Amino acid sequence: KYHLAATLLCFIKKILWLNDCKILVFPVEGSHWINMLKIIEVLHTRGHEIVVLRMSPSWYVKEKSSLYTCIDLPTTSFEENFEVFVSQQLKIRLQAKSFWSRMWANMQMRSLMVEQFNIFHQQIGDLIIKILEDKDLIQKLRNARYDLFLTDPGHAGGTILAKYLKLPLVNNARWTVQGEAHFDIAPSPLSYVPFTATELTDKMTFLQRVKNCISSVLGRYTMATISEPVYKPILSKYFGADVDYSAFMADADIWLMRNDFIFEYPRPTMPNVVYMSGFQCKPPKALPADLEEFVQSSGDHGVILMSMGTLVSQLPSHVTEEIAAAFAQLPQKVIWRYLGQRPASLGNNTLLVKWFPQNDLLGHPKTRVFLTHGGTNGLQEAIYHGIPIVGIPIFFDQPENLSRIRAKGGAVIVDVAEVDRQVLGQALNTVLNEASYTENMRRLSWLHKDQPLSPMDQAVFWIEFVIRHKGAPHLKSHSHTLSWAVYHSLDVISALLCACLFFIYTFVYVGRAVWRRNFRRNKVKQG
Amino acid sequence: KYHLAATLLCFIKKILWLNDCKILVFPVEGSHWINMLKIIEVLHTRGHEIVVLRMSPSWYVKEKSSLYTCIDLPTTSFEENFEVFVSQQLKIRLQAKSFWSRMWANMQMRSLMVEQFNIFHQQIGDLIIKILEDKDLIQKLRNARYDLFLTDPGHAGGTILAKYLKLPLVNNARWTVQGEAHFDIAPSPLSYVPFTATELTDKMTFLQRVKNCISSVLGRYTMATISEPVYKPILSKYFGADVDYSAFMADADIWLMRNDFIFEYPRPTMPNVVYMSGFQCKPPKALPADLEEFVQSSGDHGVILMSMGTLVSQLPSHVTEEIAAAFAQLPQKVIWRYLGQRPASLGNNTLLVKWFPQNDLLGHPKTRVFLTHGGTNGLQEAIYHGIPIVGIPIFFDQPENLSRIRAKGGAVIVDVAEVDRQVLGQALNTVLNEASYTENMRRLSWLHKDQPLSPMDQAVFWIEFVIRHKGAPHLKSHSHTLSWAVYHSLDVISALLCACLFFIYTFVYVGRAVWRRNFRRNKVKQG
Repeated sequence: KYHLAATLLCFIKKILWLNDCKILVFPVEGSHWINMLKIIEVLHTRGHEIVVLRMSPSWYVKEKSSLYTCIDLPTTSFEENFEVFVSQQLKIRLQAKSFWSRMWANMQMRSLMVEQFNIFHQQIGDLIIKILEDKDLIQKLRNARYDLFLTDPGHAGGTILAKYLKLPLVNNARWTVQGEAHFDIAPSPLSYVPFTATELTDKMTFLQRVKNCISSVLGRYTMATISEPVYKPILSKYFGADVDYSAFMADADIWLMRNDFIFEYPRPTMPNVVYMSGFQCKPPKALPADLEEFVQSSGDHGVILMSMGTLVSQLPSHVTEEIAAAFAQLPQKVIWRYLGQRPASLGNNTLLVKWFPQNDLLGHPKTRVFLTHGGTNGLQEAIYHGIPIVGIPIFFDQPENLSRIRAKGGAVIVDVAEVDRQVLGQALNTVLNEASYTENMRRLSWLHKDQPLSPMDQAVFWIEFVIRHKGAPHLKSHSHTLSWAVYHSLDVISALLCACLFFIYTFVYVGRAVWRRNFRRNKVKQG
Repeated sequence: KYHLAATLLCFIKKILWLNDCKILVFPVEGSHWINMLKIIEVLHTRGHEIVVLRMSPSWYVKEKSSLYTCIDLPTTSFEENFEVFVSQQLKIRLQAKSFWSRMWANMQMRSLMVEQFNIFHQQIGDLIIKILEDKDLIQKLRNARYDLFLTDPGHAGGTILAKYLKLPLVNNARWTVQGEAHFDIAPSPLSYVPFTATELTDKMTFLQRVKNCISSVLGRYTMATISEPVYKPILSKYFGADVDYSAFMADADIWLMRNDFIFEYPRPTMPNVVYMSGFQCKPPKALPADLEEFVQSSGDHGVILMSMGTLVSQLPSHVTEEIAAAFAQLPQKVIWRYLGQRPASLGNNTLLVKWFPQNDLLGHPKTRVFLTHGGTNGLQEAIYHGIPIVGIPIFFDQPENLSRIRAKGGAVIVDVAEVDRQVLGQALNTVLNEASYTENMRRLSWLHKDQPLSPMDQAVFWIEFVIRHKGAPHLKSHSHTLSWAVYHSLDVISALLCACLFFIYTFVYVGRAVWRRNFRRNKVKQG
């Protein structure tokens, strides 16, 4: 009802050449943009005018689009740098076969990642200063009178610019400049909230909780040393010296989280958090005729899908040969999204493609298993369609993401360094033959779809809510502005303890004095 | 769409004499039942079969109803006892005019309340034992194969029985046997979460935070001493000696909270909490002709409504005389829900009625102010219709409730001990003449109505969700099962500190040894 009326209204306004609202978007590049674009698409159909702040040259953001107009921000390209980083990460990961070498690899990968984040935030920092110093641009943005600022807090550019322009702010978030977004804005007791990249669950042993605490301290310290030195001087210069960094970054009207409690373990949350995990998922469309024919040819055995995402374009040939050989052993048909040279060991049952309609294939009734690197989008599509997973994680949040699906009984994880035809074949057979994997994923799918409002409708509702009310102050806690000691009431506890001690001391002191006087008097009497 | 399909399905099932689901309800008596009944009404229209565990003789729950069937539980009536309690509370409150006498009155009222709660929980405790020992009743309840247990955790009866029957549990809650429900299930940092009955806001000075901490310790201790001694032995006997009391009480699939962030200050929450504040509110219906005529006769001045709720039936005559005199001074018309003797000072502009259609009157365009004791239902109807408030709180959550509306700029509060024609007249004039009160309440009303789903639809959706999925384990945190020390990671912190100290000690010890050896060797050489 709500939807219909809004669509109608939007249609009438479009006829009258009236756009509903003006939304300024500062996205994060790469796969984050793919997500943001899905929201922009829907906001566009609802009649809003969207302006995107686009880094030029851009990696993913197209300059010309019917959905939005661009304001170009001249920067240096981040793309090549990032590709080198990805191949380095993959190389390190492939060499780590034993426990200790895996530890060492993790440390190397971590330090590379820190370096990468340093370059990234430095570039964004420079860009923000350039924007804030560009009086013409700022005046242009002010004159446009935007109704809302929509950003991805993966960098601080959006948050800083939104506050500078004094616009209501909606974050499309899973990560912030300080780590996983929940840790910035909600209480996160480390006794049952696993810290990022620990691959722990909400039920931890004592030693796991020790690991969780240490990871949290190290992780937060690392992220702080990366982002704070870049952004804090900017805040001091443009917003005053007394601005608290964490409070500034946590201050948004609504947090649209690319997450939910089908994927995440139950944990405390805040009133201004809206979960929209799987907002990009849709019922499957029909496949192209040739693909459909191939899928149907699998008969009762069904189809295995494999995709390692957009970032990892080339696995080394010794790995791909083993993967191809593992596939060749199986009675299933395989569709493999693959860009490299055709492996020699490829079986007749395997179809190599440069790209496939992932959502439509995952939604096909013949699909049995999804072999993936564990990117969030792929996993959420798999949850949506209820397809079990064999995961080969490489870096970033992939190991963590897959560990969650495994904990829920929907995935088997294989270490990329250990991939050979036996290991991978066994993993695939486990997921294919043990019914529990499919059942668990179907249960997650049912839970995901059983919501009063679709994730995208939720997201759009709350974006428009912030526009209508020019913010959402009644949902925004001011707890971030409290210092650490005040937040945890340490000052109050200290004061109360001091007061107690003072009373005890006075009581003892007076008591002793009284007792002594009596005692002496008695003594004198006795004497 | 969802609603329509469900209604259609329900209609078809009704024709086929198939009821959807069987729901067992264990309500709390009094005004809590009024709330529960609203939910039962809607569940009934959706085709569910509802069975109510009814204490007999019952105070509010009718035995015969087309909405539900009853299972009578023989108890002693609580009603008379409670009426004595109410008049005692009112008497104490009326005598407290100075700061110190108010403090003293609060303490007296508190101790009376503790006594009252003791009697209440003792009665419920006896009843639960009687139920659990009644093999026939238990067998009957088991045989009926209920799909859901719906209760109000204001007493522990529902929680205990639901677990005994191993049924999915939904709580319709604001209060539990331990206090405000949030404090049982979500992190509640006392630095920005005001404790119950403190009348503090989320922004507190140091001294207010001290008050908040002390109130929290005292409040939780008091509630624990009331309810734990009654219910814990029952848990030990029927569920095993190692059952944790707080974890047991906090363990429900969904908490339907009679609260939201228009009424509550922003605070941490949990994934299985659904806010349904104002679920009982509806657009106004037309008034009876005589009432409409009276309302219309007010002209541009409009109407003032007064109701002190169902519990306080009689204020003493010196108070009612002053109230009547205050009304007589005003150009507005007044509708006063009043059961006592007609005050001598009553003006021509005031209409005394035994009952009025509160929701329809609050929704009438001529209504200007609502004079209320501050019960939750009345306040939520006032928020829904955007009517500003003059509050005369008496006991329970009333002072607290009103303090929230005052903090949001929608209410003036008058102490019942200080009510006279001047004070009340001034309060009414302030709210009538300063536009901000009406504006603020209208803003709250807009925020309340601007939700993607109505509160009742939310409530019903999540009740049926729990039925469909036989629970909601993915939303239920197991944090309640952790001990206090583990929850706050105190064991981990201690272990890490010990490890640090050990390393420092070893380092210093070895360092000193090495330094000494070198130093001595040098000495020997020099020597």
